[in-house]
Amino acid sequence: MNLLRFLRPSTIASAHCDGPCGVYDPAAARIAAEAVLSMEKKIAALGDARDLATINTRTRFIVIKEQQADIVKKELDILWHDYFKPEHLEKYPNLHDVFWKAAKAASKCKHESNPANGEALLKAVEEIHNIFWATKNRTDVPFYRANP
Amino acid sequence: MNLLRFLRPSTIASAHCDGPCGVYDPAAARIAAEAVLSMEKKIAALGDARDLATINTRTRFIVIKEQQADIVKKELDILWHDYFKPEHLEKYPNLHDVFWKAAKAASKCKHESNPANGEALLKAVEEIHNIFWATKNRTDVPFYRANP
Amino acid sequence: MNLLRFLRPSTIASAHCDGPCGVYDPAAARIAAEAVLSMEKKIAALGDARDLATINTRTRFIVIKEQQADIVKKELDILWHDYFKPEHLEKYPNLHDVFWKAAKAASKCKHESNPANGEALLKAVEEIHNIFWATKNRTDVPFYRANP
Amino acid sequence: MNLLRFLRPSTIASAHCDGPCGVYDPAAARIAAEAVLSMEKKIAALGDARDLATINTRTRFIVIKEQQADIVKKELDILWHDYFKPEHLEKYPNLHDVFWKAAKAASKCKHESNPANGEALLKAVEEIHNIFWATKNRTDVPFYRANP
Amino acid sequence: MNLLRFLRPSTIASAHCDGPCGVYDPAAARIAAEAVLSMEKKIAALGDARDLATINTRTRFIVIKEQQADIVKKELDILWHDYFKPEHLEKYPNLHDVFWKAAKAASKCKHESNPANGEALLKAVEEIHNIFWATKNRTDVPFYRANP
Amino acid sequence: MNLLRFLRPSTIASAHCDGPCGVYDPAAARIAAEAVLSMEKKIAALGDARDLATINTRTRFIVIKEQQADIVKKELDILWHDYFKPEHLEKYPNLHDVFWKAAKAASKCKHESNPANGEALLKAVEEIHNIFWATKNRTDVPFYRANP
Repeated sequence: MNLLRFLRPSTIASAHCDGPCGVYDPAAARIAAEAVLSMEKKIAALGDARDLATINTRTRFIVIKEQQADIVKKELDILWHDYFKPEHLEKYPNLHDVFWKAAKAASKCKHESNPANGEALLKAVEEIHNIFWATKNRTDVPFYRANP
Repeated sequence: MNLLRFLRPSTIASAHCDGPCGVYDPAAARIAAEAVLSMEKKIAALGDARDLATINTRTRFIVIKEQQADIVKKELDILWHDYFKPEHLEKYPNLHDVFWKAAKAASKCKHESNPANGEALLKAVEEIHNIFWATKNRTDVPFYRANP
Repeated sequence: MNLLRFLRPSTIASAHCDGPCGVYDPAAARIAAEAVLSMEKKIAALGDARDLATINTRTRFIVIKEQQADIVKKELDILWHDYFKPEHLEKYPNLHDVFWKAAKAASKCKHESNPANGEALLKAVEEIHNIFWATKNRTDVPFYRANP
Repeated sequence: MNLLRFLRPSTIASAHCDGPCGVYDPAAARIAAEAVLSMEKKIAALGDARDLATINTRTRFIVIKEQQADIVKKELDILWHDYFKPEHLEKYPNLHDVFWKAAKAASKCKHESNPANGEALLKAVEEIHNIFWATKNRTDVPFYRANP
Repeated sequence: MNLLRFLRPSTIASAHCDGPCGVYDPAAARIAAEAVLSMEKKIAALGDARDLATINTRTRFIVIKEQQADIVKKELDILWHDYFKPEHLEKYPNLHDVFWKAAKAASKCKHESNPANGEALLKAVEEIHNIFWATKNRTDVPFYRANP
Repeated sequence: MNLLRFLRPSTIASAHCDGPCGVYDPAAARIAAEAVLSMEKKIAALGDARDLATINTRTRFIVIKEQQADIVKKELDILWHDYFKPEHLEKYPNLHDVFWKAAKAASKCKHESNPANGEALLKAVEEIHNIFWATKNRTDVPFYRANP
C-alpha cells in the first residue's frame, strides 16, 4: 500500500462522520444553565451569614456556579462549531451572534451572582434550542425545565 | 465566635442543599448513551477496511465510545447517590439493582462493540428516566432520542 | 471477513477483560477520604479569622475538600459497578446499601465541614476495604492511614 | 446588610474582571496546533506497518492528535467569547467567521490524518494571532513555531 | 484593615498547610503502575488477532495504558514537589534522579507495550515507597500488589 | 507472527517518538504563571470588602489562582521529565533543582496570595525558558509577557 492511499480520506469515513457522533442536544447546555440559576438563587438565599457552615456552602455554590457556567459554554461551543453548517448559517444569518452572546451571558453568571443572569442565560439556551430543533424539523422536543 | 458554632451545620444551608444544586435530569445520561450507540453503529459500518483513514476513524470512534460510556456511568451514579433518597428506595425496592445493571450495561458497551449493547443501555436509561420523573410527579417530560 | 465475525466478542478479549484492568484497590478511596478529613480538621483549626491569608487558605481547603470527596465517590463507584459481581452480592446482600451510604457519607463531607463526617467516611471506606479483600481471600493487606 | 446590596455587582469587581484574568495569548492554541501537525506527520511516517509496536504508537498518536485538536478548539473558543468585545467585532466584521472556520479546521484534523490539515490549522491560528495582537497594539510578539 | 495586613501570610495558615492536605501515599502511584503492567500483559495476550472485537479491546487497552502511565507521572510529581523538602534531599542526595528516572520509566510504558517496562516502573515506585515511608519513620506500611 | 516480534519496539516508532509529539514550549507555563500573578494582583485590589459581589469575585479568583498554579506545575513537569535528556543534565547540572524550586514557587502562589510570589514564579519560568531555548540553539524566541 503506498502512502498516497494512506492520506486519502476514506469515503466511508466521511459519509458517516461529519460530527464526532451525530448526537447533539441543547439539553446538555440547558441542564447546566439550570444548575447555574439554582446556585444563584441559593447563594442569594444564604443572605450575609458569616458562620463557617454558611461560608462552606457559599464557597461551594460559587465554585459549582463557575463550573456549570463553563459547561454551558463548552456545550454551546460544541453545537456552534460541530453541528452547525454553512447552510444553517444562510438560514440563520445571526447564528454566530446568538452563540457569542449566549457565551457572554454565561460569563456574566460567573462574574456576578444574580438569578437574573441565570434567567437570561436560560433564555439564550432556549433560543438555541428552538433554532437547533427547527433545523432538524423536529417538533416533538419540548423545552422543559428539570427544576421549574 | 466559638468553635462549636463553627462546626454546627447551618439551618439555612441544610434547607437549600440536599443536592449540589437540585437540578437532576436523566437526559444527560441519555445523550451520552445515544452517542455510545451511534459509535457502535458507525464502527460496524466501517467494516474491516485497513487503510489509514479508516484506522484513524475507527480508533477515534472506539475512544469516543469509551468516553461516552464513562459519562453514562458517571451521570447515573450522580442520580443514584445524590438524587435518590431512602423514601424513593422504599417505593422502588429494586432501585439499587436497576442502577447497578445499567452501569454494567455501560461497561459492556466498552468491552465490546455491538449496537445491541447500546440499545440495551438506552433501555436501562429509559427505565431510570421513568422512575425518576415519576418520583417528581412530572408527566410532561417525554423520553425522546436526539438521533432517532 | 463478514460483518457477523466483526460483531462477535472475541474469546480472548472476554477471558482477559472482565474489568478495565483487573487492578482494584480501595486504597485509592481511602487516600482521598483521608484528605477530606485532613481538610475538615484544618478548616476547623483556622477558626473564624477574616484576614486575606486565612480567607485564601479556607477557600482553598473547602474546594480541596469538595474535590477529594468527589474522588472518594468516583473510586467507590468504580469498585461497586466494575469489580463486584453477582456472586459477591449473594455473599454480601447489603453490598448495594454499603456503597450507597458511603456515597452519601461523602456528600455530607461536602455539604458540611466537620471532622466527624470525615471519620464516618473513613469508617465506611474501611468496611468496604474489609469486604473487598475478603472476596479476594487476601489477609495481607492492612487498613492503615497515611496520616494517622 | 439588605439583599439588594448583595446582588449589586461591585464596581471594583467589574473594573478588574472583564475576563477571568485578562491574560490571553494565542500561543496556547498555537502550541496545540503544532502538536496536531506533528502527530499527522509522524502518523504518515509510520506507513502501514502492522506489528504491535507500530499499532501501539499509531493508536497513541491518533488519540494525542484528537486531544490536541480539542485543546486548539477550547483555546480559540476562550479568545472568541472571553477576550473579544463588540468594539473588536466592529473593526473585524468577519471575526466570527474566522473563529468558526478555525474550529472547523481543527475538526478536520480529527476526522482525517493529513499534515496538510495541520498546516491549514496553523495558518488559521496565525491569522487569529495577528488580529489579536493588533487589537492590543503589540508589535513585539512574533508568530514562531516551537517545532519548525 | 489596611492592605499590608492583607498581604501578610497568616501564621495559622503556614503552620497547617505545608502541603495541600498533608496526606501523601505512594500507593496512588503504585495502583496506576499496576494497571499499566496489567494492560501490557493483556495487550501481549491478545496476540495479533485482527477481528473487530480484538481491535476494540487492544485500542482500549493502549489508551488505558497511556492514561494510567500519566497518572503514575502525576502522582509521583506530587510527591516530588509537594511532599519532599530540602532536609529530605540532604538525606537522599539522589532523590531528584530517582523521581526523574521513574517518570522516564512511565514514559517508556507509553512509547512501547512490554510487560518488562511495567515491572521496571513498579520497581521504581517501590523504591520511592521505601524512601517515603522511611522519612516518616513508618515501618507498618507494606509494599503490596493489589494484583499479584 | 510470533509473540517475540510483537514485543520488540519498532525502529520506526523509536525514531519518531522520543517525546509525545516533540512540541515543547515553556510559553504554556508562562501564560499560566501570568494568570496566577494577575489573580494575585486583582485579589489584593479587591481589598477587604465583604459584600456578596466581592465575595463572589474573590472566591473565583482564589480558585482560578489555584488552577493556574497547578497548570504551571504540570507544564513544567512535562518539560522536566519528557523534554530534558541526560545530555542536557550534564550541561545544566542544577537542572533538577531549577525545576524543583519552580514547582515550590508555584505551590507558594497557592498557599498565599501575594503578587511577589507570582513575580518570583515568572522569574523561575523565565530561567527555564532561557535554558530550554539554549538547548535548541534558538535565539529567535523572546520571553514576553502577554499582560505586561
